[in-house]
Amino acid sequence: MMQGRFIALEGGEGAGKSTQARLLAEALRGLGLKVVTTREPGGTPGAEAIRALLLDGVEGDGGESWNPRAEALLFAAARSDHVHRLIRPALARGAWVICDRYLDSSRAYQGGGGGLSDADIASLHAIGSEGLLPDLTLLVEVTPAVAVHRLALRDTDGSDRIGGRDAAYHARVASAFSVFAEAEPARFARIDGDGDAQATHALVMTALAPLLS
Amino acid sequence: MMQGRFIALEGGEGAGKSTQARLLAEALRGLGLKVVTTREPGGTPGAEAIRALLLDGVEGDGGESWNPRAEALLFAAARSDHVHRLIRPALARGAWVICDRYLDSSRAYQGGGGGLSDADIASLHAIGSEGLLPDLTLLVEVTPAVAVHRLALRDTDGSDRIGGRDAAYHARVASAFSVFAEAEPARFARIDGDGDAQATHALVMTALAPLLS
Repeated sequence: MMQGRFIALEGGEGAGKSTQARLLAEALRGLGLKVVTTREPGGTPGAEAIRALLLDGVEGDGGESWNPRAEALLFAAARSDHVHRLIRPALARGAWVICDRYLDSSRAYQGGGGGLSDADIASLHAIGSEGLLPDLTLLVEVTPAVAVHRLALRDTDGSDRIGGRDAAYHARVASAFSVFAEAEPARFARIDGDGDAQATHALVMTALAPLLS
Repeated sequence: MMQGRFIALEGGEGAGKSTQARLLAEALRGLGLKVVTTREPGGTPGAEAIRALLLDGVEGDGGESWNPRAEALLFAAARSDHVHRLIRPALARGAWVICDRYLDSSRAYQGGGGGLSDADIASLHAIGSEGLLPDLTLLVEVTPAVAVHRLALRDTDGSDRIGGRDAAYHARVASAFSVFAEAEPARFARIDGDGDAQATHALVMTALAPLLS
């Protein structure tokens, strides 16, 4: 039996991660592999319940959001449940796990804010999930203008989902991810996501080739 | 304005912590002090929502409980919200905060189980709540037989709340707390809780005298 592999997709909003996760899953299934697709925050009933607390807030709290430290703990708790109940068991039975966002999203979005350091995020991951890392992290990178354009196209329900998030915001997130990729070149593959979905998918499959041989 | 103080009550189930918290709050209010009583897990809407996830479980998870690592993260997240929104603001305006269970309960109940160390619990507390500790921790201690007897009296709704928790269980929890108290004698006051509520309350007030002078 071929060994299960853990593949994470990372990148800012509008990079095309979810589309690439779907195309990758189809390609791997076409090769006869067992594939589990999942996402964070969420992926298990427990983690989805925590996701709801994070995204929807809590009744009676006056609409105030979680402080950055509580938020980081909740993301780590959701990840712990996800790793414990879904990711590790799937890998143990030889499946490939394709996860839309994982630890590096916590590092990019929660780390560095509210007095939390990257080392703090790493400590939470060590305690919560015994530091499980993907075999390969696909960092899908787009130029900030492309991200803003794609998110504007997605925003068809009038809910202003990208509210106030300008190109500078996307540039900051992209910069954080690129620093992580530079620091761990063996764990990351940087994928140019500015092209169309099929072109990007071809780059993903090239990056994955070493794991498939 | 007198400085606010943070008082935690700790001990096993059946020690009489909640009764002592109430009597202490009444006594301090009688001295003209501003008093806030609270409890963990919980104390704020956000922390209570996390408490519900911890105690009631999650729909669709097959009744399986949280893994010990996720559980410890959730307790730390609830505490972070509680400290951030209730305890620190109350202390800042000069109130006395009386909290029924705090960090040492996490150390006694989550630490040492499921591969989690006391150092892990301390790390979570440093990250989540910047390590806030009580000015005084009242450890209410009862002999295990007394705890079992009191819990049996409480269990009048037929719900078997003490199910399977025998004197040996209570002795293990009591032992964990006593180790913490021995390691930090300046932060802990050990209170003999075997007597009646008023007798124990008198011991509590004696232990508090240095903070009131």
